[in-house]
Amino acid sequence: MLEWVHKPVKPIAMAAYQHALDQQLRLAKPGSLGVLEEIVVRLCGMQNSNRPHLNRIQISIFAADHGIAAEEAVGFSQAATLAMLRDIASGGAAISVLAKYLGAGLEMVDVGVCHNIVGVPGVVRARVAQGTANFRYGPAMTPTQLRAALLAGQRSVTRAVERGMRLFIAGDVGSANAMSATALACGLLNRSAREVESFGGDIDRASTVYKAAVVQCALDLHLSTSKSPLDLLQSLGGFEIAAITGAYIAAAQQGLPVLVDGFVSSVAALLASRIHAGSSTWWFYGHTSAEPCHHHILKELNAKPLLNLGVGLGEGSGAAMAVPLLRQACMLHAKMATVDRSVVAGY
Amino acid sequence: MLEWVHKPVKPIAMAAYQHALDQQLRLAKPGSLGVLEEIVVRLCGMQNSNRPHLNRIQISIFAADHGIAAEEAVGFSQAATLAMLRDIASGGAAISVLAKYLGAGLEMVDVGVCHNIVGVPGVVRARVAQGTANFRYGPAMTPTQLRAALLAGQRSVTRAVERGMRLFIAGDVGSANAMSATALACGLLNRSAREVESFGGDIDRASTVYKAAVVQCALDLHLSTSKSPLDLLQSLGGFEIAAITGAYIAAAQQGLPVLVDGFVSSVAALLASRIHAGSSTWWFYGHTSAEPCHHHILKELNAKPLLNLGVGLGEGSGAAMAVPLLRQACMLHAKMATVDRSVVAGY
Repeated sequence: MLEWVHKPVKPIAMAAYQHALDQQLRLAKPGSLGVLEEIVVRLCGMQNSNRPHLNRIQISIFAADHGIAAEEAVGFSQAATLAMLRDIASGGAAISVLAKYLGAGLEMVDVGVCHNIVGVPGVVRARVAQGTANFRYGPAMTPTQLRAALLAGQRSVTRAVERGMRLFIAGDVGSANAMSATALACGLLNRSAREVESFGGDIDRASTVYKAAVVQCALDLHLSTSKSPLDLLQSLGGFEIAAITGAYIAAAQQGLPVLVDGFVSSVAALLASRIHAGSSTWWFYGHTSAEPCHHHILKELNAKPLLNLGVGLGEGSGAAMAVPLLRQACMLHAKMATVDRSVVAGY
Repeated sequence: MLEWVHKPVKPIAMAAYQHALDQQLRLAKPGSLGVLEEIVVRLCGMQNSNRPHLNRIQISIFAADHGIAAEEAVGFSQAATLAMLRDIASGGAAISVLAKYLGAGLEMVDVGVCHNIVGVPGVVRARVAQGTANFRYGPAMTPTQLRAALLAGQRSVTRAVERGMRLFIAGDVGSANAMSATALACGLLNRSAREVESFGGDIDRASTVYKAAVVQCALDLHLSTSKSPLDLLQSLGGFEIAAITGAYIAAAQQGLPVLVDGFVSSVAALLASRIHAGSSTWWFYGHTSAEPCHHHILKELNAKPLLNLGVGLGEGSGAAMAVPLLRQACMLHAKMATVDRSVVAGY
């Protein structure tokens, strides 16, 4: 049932990649375009074109609730997940404003919100269950639920490809999902909860200590039996995290470049890269978020994100902010004079 | 003759600033927009509006040659300065491509190019001299030339304000100007050339050592007599660096926000802030460039640039790349729901 996640990723077009690399060396520039050079050369390989573009961008927001929210001393209630979806739909959320600025397609996918979603237009229904189980006392989801959540991510990517999208951004909405992402980070990085300590949102120190204890409790319960990344995801994950994991693998298989967002998405990226090592070839990284743990995950992914602005919103917003840099990289590659046809010969 | 540089800067509208700060606290966001919050709040104060925008942007490229280029073992020839202007005019330079992407106005100002500029449309003529004198053996410019170069920057800002521009980016073009900027950096930071060591472009190690020796030689000649920032600028500067210094001061006086570019521009910013301490209130910083010395200058300016992408082109290109972040900050401030009128109440 899960064979698809191991299927090969689409290969990068090496001839286009090499051609772009050669062209960058011939551009009329008295210095370096830095990271933007590497980005556009990779995009040329991905799009098998020396004129890559990112006109059409898909932003898919995966929403779900978490049983572990019952352990939260303070923080967002599960009702907030629904409220955030409403805000996204009404255009008032950060990601709605950014999507409009970028001319991007914005889709919300309900992979497991607790409350019935009424009065929120445009939500794709892919609900696995009404939230995960509380992973302090048992696995967050069943194997069947894990498969369904991964598949919800794959399907979102398939829709994006069918719509001719050139870049995929996943966003997460789900109250208490930072606890789930932290527990997963501990498992993936083989560290204790106290070491990793990153719990999102506005919480005070006492609450952090309490949450670290809850996460450690869950780690003690699960880590002896959960060995593989898929086991970890089933034991400690959320439906939206599993969906993003599935989406990142599927995007690499279907040849759709990905721009990874913040902490929660990066945990999904690390899971995806552990499940399918080749998939990260298709990913870029948008930003280093305000979450203290994020840099551990990025280091493990060998990722150097484009931005570091202290943004910590989730929703895909940090990745969306980085899109103009990718577009500028494409434009510079396409429009700059090359030395041989340039009026500049002296340098 | 230089009284104007000491005239007061335009005050920030504190009521608009405070109002914007209050609004940011009420935006429907489950986390922080990080640096973008601070940026838009400052822009609100600068534009005295709760709906700041950056639709109209001025990019002014100041071009000049340097007598110190005679000491260069390798590097760009003075003919390259002219060639770069031609490339900018023809649309093939990085800054031309970026200006078009941003819909920005692009102006070139000849403040002291050696060669006669023929066949390059749209160059503002403000030539102080045919390049500076070689500062290894004497002052780079006369007091009269310094005044003229500073004024060329002021005039560019005045034109931008008259055209209704909302943001000012200065770019530098001038072969060997990294040597001048490095010498100025040494003087401003009170460090030796060996400590600062940053010479731009593609040069090998032996050339770096040689250039550091040349710069140290010039420092030994000038630093005993050049005490004030204006003295330093006259002794070691370039006409384009002086013009940018003048532009940054004038922008603060005329209330035009500035986005500072890379190493050479930042040296001009440090000069401007030493000449007129209040002027930096009006500046943002676009990027940390690939020049090793740039971070010393930024630290002295207490600046935290938006980007760090290893870009080292000059021409204002790094600042231009950061413009979409400022625009996104404005858009988020204007369009996001606030909690009281938001459908979200739970968080």
